[in-house]
Amino acid sequence: MNKPTKIGVLTSGGDSPGMNAAIRAVVRTGLHYGLEVFGIHRGYAGMVEDDIEPMNSRSVANIIQRGGTILKTARCKEFMTPEGRKIAYDNLRKHGIDGLVIIGGDGSFRGAQIFSNEYDIPCIGIPGTIDKDMAGTDFTIGFDTAVNTAVRAIDKIRDTADAHDRLFIVEVMGRDAGYIALHSGIATGAEHILIPETKTNVEEIIAGLTEKEKRRKLVNLIVVAEGDDTGGGDEVGKMVKERLPNADVRVCILGHIQRGGSPTCLDRLIASRMGYHAVECLMEGKHNVMVGIVNNRMHYLPLDNAVKAKERFNKEWLRIVKILAS
Amino acid sequence: MNKPTKIGVLTSGGDSPGMNAAIRAVVRTGLHYGLEVFGIHRGYAGMVEDDIEPMNSRSVANIIQRGGTILKTARCKEFMTPEGRKIAYDNLRKHGIDGLVIIGGDGSFRGAQIFSNEYDIPCIGIPGTIDKDMAGTDFTIGFDTAVNTAVRAIDKIRDTADAHDRLFIVEVMGRDAGYIALHSGIATGAEHILIPETKTNVEEIIAGLTEKEKRRKLVNLIVVAEGDDTGGGDEVGKMVKERLPNADVRVCILGHIQRGGSPTCLDRLIASRMGYHAVECLMEGKHNVMVGIVNNRMHYLPLDNAVKAKERFNKEWLRIVKILAS
Amino acid sequence: MNKPTKIGVLTSGGDSPGMNAAIRAVVRTGLHYGLEVFGIHRGYAGMVEDDIEPMNSRSVANIIQRGGTILKTARCKEFMTPEGRKIAYDNLRKHGIDGLVIIGGDGSFRGAQIFSNEYDIPCIGIPGTIDKDMAGTDFTIGFDTAVNTAVRAIDKIRDTADAHDRLFIVEVMGRDAGYIALHSGIATGAEHILIPETKTNVEEIIAGLTEKEKRRKLVNLIVVAEGDDTGGGDEVGKMVKERLPNADVRVCILGHIQRGGSPTCLDRLIASRMGYHAVECLMEGKHNVMVGIVNNRMHYLPLDNAVKAKERFNKEWLRIVKILAS
Amino acid sequence: MNKPTKIGVLTSGGDSPGMNAAIRAVVRTGLHYGLEVFGIHRGYAGMVEDDIEPMNSRSVANIIQRGGTILKTARCKEFMTPEGRKIAYDNLRKHGIDGLVIIGGDGSFRGAQIFSNEYDIPCIGIPGTIDKDMAGTDFTIGFDTAVNTAVRAIDKIRDTADAHDRLFIVEVMGRDAGYIALHSGIATGAEHILIPETKTNVEEIIAGLTEKEKRRKLVNLIVVAEGDDTGGGDEVGKMVKERLPNADVRVCILGHIQRGGSPTCLDRLIASRMGYHAVECLMEGKHNVMVGIVNNRMHYLPLDNAVKAKERFNKEWLRIVKILAS
Repeated sequence: MNKPTKIGVLTSGGDSPGMNAAIRAVVRTGLHYGLEVFGIHRGYAGMVEDDIEPMNSRSVANIIQRGGTILKTARCKEFMTPEGRKIAYDNLRKHGIDGLVIIGGDGSFRGAQIFSNEYDIPCIGIPGTIDKDMAGTDFTIGFDTAVNTAVRAIDKIRDTADAHDRLFIVEVMGRDAGYIALHSGIATGAEHILIPETKTNVEEIIAGLTEKEKRRKLVNLIVVAEGDDTGGGDEVGKMVKERLPNADVRVCILGHIQRGGSPTCLDRLIASRMGYHAVECLMEGKHNVMVGIVNNRMHYLPLDNAVKAKERFNKEWLRIVKILAS
Repeated sequence: MNKPTKIGVLTSGGDSPGMNAAIRAVVRTGLHYGLEVFGIHRGYAGMVEDDIEPMNSRSVANIIQRGGTILKTARCKEFMTPEGRKIAYDNLRKHGIDGLVIIGGDGSFRGAQIFSNEYDIPCIGIPGTIDKDMAGTDFTIGFDTAVNTAVRAIDKIRDTADAHDRLFIVEVMGRDAGYIALHSGIATGAEHILIPETKTNVEEIIAGLTEKEKRRKLVNLIVVAEGDDTGGGDEVGKMVKERLPNADVRVCILGHIQRGGSPTCLDRLIASRMGYHAVECLMEGKHNVMVGIVNNRMHYLPLDNAVKAKERFNKEWLRIVKILAS
Repeated sequence: MNKPTKIGVLTSGGDSPGMNAAIRAVVRTGLHYGLEVFGIHRGYAGMVEDDIEPMNSRSVANIIQRGGTILKTARCKEFMTPEGRKIAYDNLRKHGIDGLVIIGGDGSFRGAQIFSNEYDIPCIGIPGTIDKDMAGTDFTIGFDTAVNTAVRAIDKIRDTADAHDRLFIVEVMGRDAGYIALHSGIATGAEHILIPETKTNVEEIIAGLTEKEKRRKLVNLIVVAEGDDTGGGDEVGKMVKERLPNADVRVCILGHIQRGGSPTCLDRLIASRMGYHAVECLMEGKHNVMVGIVNNRMHYLPLDNAVKAKERFNKEWLRIVKILAS
Repeated sequence: MNKPTKIGVLTSGGDSPGMNAAIRAVVRTGLHYGLEVFGIHRGYAGMVEDDIEPMNSRSVANIIQRGGTILKTARCKEFMTPEGRKIAYDNLRKHGIDGLVIIGGDGSFRGAQIFSNEYDIPCIGIPGTIDKDMAGTDFTIGFDTAVNTAVRAIDKIRDTADAHDRLFIVEVMGRDAGYIALHSGIATGAEHILIPETKTNVEEIIAGLTEKEKRRKLVNLIVVAEGDDTGGGDEVGKMVKERLPNADVRVCILGHIQRGGSPTCLDRLIASRMGYHAVECLMEGKHNVMVGIVNNRMHYLPLDNAVKAKERFNKEWLRIVKILAS
């Protein structure tokens, strides 16, 4: 396998804080190795629509600390069709691009895999998603920032919950995975944490709230992942109000604030490291792998296997939640 | 009128960041003048239920930077009845309390006014509300913090809006007043700011969005006060989606995060100053006034007049919004 | 006097957070009035070196929330000479620029005044300085952000001061003015605030510390303006250690973190408003005034008078410091 | 080995953010197991001076988010003597305390080890230090918060560095270890990172700066650990000014702000987990181990070995610094 001479980098799927740090690392490592580096705008849409521009070292100056992605991201239906991918390939060839780095989630990697099976362009994936639920890596870019944003927001909510002796139900992001809920819930002392990975027992929650009210432990906080089987924060709010009509209950949906903001140190670090190694992979002739970090070491997973991971759930943590919130 | 010798301080109504700084100032200024100072818990409820404790200088150590209120706040139906206020008065007399400082909003001041008409205990009000809409003062404790919290949250939302070229509709607090919406909207470059003080013209907004889409100005941000005549963020979202079915529209309700958090410098300063002057007022024999700040000077308004102010709206600002967001 | 048709905008002197919001307002208001707007880089140096570029609405997109200044700032010796100013004028004429907006402090305004006396180009000043000490305005762009940065930093220092029962001496910015020290000191509950406007009495401080040690009030915080007559934080630290050799004393110099960071809501608002009005001034044929805000209204001061203000000092505040920190 | 029935918890050495979360976890886990839990104030000093109080669930309510340590910390010379430790032991026995949890660094663990060799009280260590340089654990409580505080501060400094095209030399904490410098330097795009673990080559730095000045890469940032062999930030500043007299160089010493502040999500999580497991250890009859986390699993290290780790330095990271900052 030959080393590439011109590479493209794109961000795809939902944006996550730290993607800019990864772009910067890909661009500068590429330049370091004498490659030409192209920025592909709006994910695969930019490949199909030839929205592709050369990048230099200055293109990525002063972006390591910024949220969002300077390359933007978008969904692209055309790329899901063979015709669309053909156009995309022709555009890449036009620019001479012979290697790709895709920063995104499992959906983006599936697209890369299909594309790479059809056309001989090596694709390296970098896991960028706030949800953390990727196989083959302990970290995904954006999770640490998102969970800290959630924690800071819940801290503020606790101030007012405490002032009023209210029950707050806070919904955080996580359609398939409860990581943001679990981490932010433990870190803010939530009494209950409702996640998609476990069956939620509403009766138990109601019983817990009733018992606590008796003890006049008044501030109560329930953190719910949006993908919990109850249906999310609003649904949990309805159930609680129905069963405990005298309780002073409020629901907060944290929403999109969790996607933005300046990335944390950790997200910048792993993004820098993964970006660097993605280019190293291309230089070593690797193709169609995702760059992950497992036990602090780089780990390379075939893109085929880079899917959402339903992780074996750490029961110990749920036990800690119960004991510490009491 | 005699000077008081024992005073009580309470927080009432919705909590707002900076209330603790005001409590601290009342307690320490009271002690400075040789008064005994009592903390009344959970607003008027604490008066009715005799939830009243003496405070010393240490009671308020290390609280100036904390959100919420260490005295807690609550609604109190009993205090709305003559019987309830009689009990409250008896409790105050039991402790010898002959002066009150009430930190809260217009509803809390109405209660104080009625109480003070019935019983000879001077009441001084300190305006603590994130909504800012009080007559007789340029500042209310908590507004500056709340509006900065909103700005930081919208900044994060802009990151992801920008990455996706999406339209975001963000609802901020403000049931009767558009201050949080107006200030946070200008500060984040919102294209449209919808407030209760003006009639919202949905056609104009749709026209604006359509025109901007043509110019491919892609990031769009609409900030809506919860009390806007459209009905708030969710309603605006529905209207826009109906009229522009192809637009990628998201709604965020910022909610209770705006009530909490460590207060800004300004909120700590005005809270400290107002707390100090509230006690000065009591020492000077003033009664039933609200302590305000107008044009950087202390201003004393009879509690009767300390109502929500429908401010003469500054048209210039709306003009600036239009010009700067273009 | 004729209305200008092409205007230039520059930032000069020390940078301050919110300058970008002011640039944005000048550019967009200028475009709104059909003017051509040029960005002049690195202050007067850009005028002398013809580092001048046309700006459009996109040039200032997504900058309202950023610290620093996209136009950069620099000192310029050449502009202090008649020859340098002649070159600067010739460069402006070359571009057809017939109006200037200068965002900066009193030094920058003096330069503008001299230039404007020599050449017929109207100059409007916008006060941008974290020090706040300008005549003719209640607000300067950057002060609110700087003082909040100082407050957040001192809050962190208090955490560790409190854990160790240590005395911390914190130096904040302010060579000629004690505003940052005074505001941040009150907002963090400092026992002593040392500012250039008052003669510092070291004996009194030592006496206060000794007395407090006896009462075992253990956390102590002294906030010092860098321009205090003692010589600043390090000097105060030396004096205290000499006189109280057993005290556990630490000195922190906050330094340049106070100049950067995303501007607060207030700084973005006043910058937007001042930028808008600066262009309005040019359109109305005003020349050589500074745009200020006094008692919430726009105020126009001849640039000649836009000097550092030794403000009549508010004694009440120093009294509040003493009472509240006890 | 018997299970303890009454345990004491203390914080010792330099404070670090997250210690309160660890205290909370120890207390609540202890109560969960039916133990009595005592808080020992000011580290070993509280053992010697019998500054020991029983704690209940409420004692640790609402502290998970706070910086510093509610138990305070101090140095204690008496505990370094056999006589002092005898008094300490007698005090513990007086309260019936038969198990200890020590939250601190290597110095604190040495004390525990000696004490535990002399008296039969099992001691469990929890690594709390912002410096991260402990053997037997991937995480120490406080590091993640400290490094994020450093990153946020340097971000602000970059704003002003960028506005002025200045060289900033920023000193961060780390007397023996370069972790804070390395992580914060990579995360902020520093050109050079100077750490105790490597010999600093000043000539190389000067050469790099000179070369970059030629390319007009103007913003430059050097991050220096306080324990670097150059002597720290001020020393590096002097050297650079001497060799590059025309450069506009500023030095910032971040100092104690790095020790305080509300802990990050990660620090709260590991503190909660370690606190829980420290009590589990006591219940299982373990004694004289430090609770660590290695590769996401709990790891128990004899206190004897819980020393500062001169980690085998990850050369790859220094290589990444060079490539990414170019």
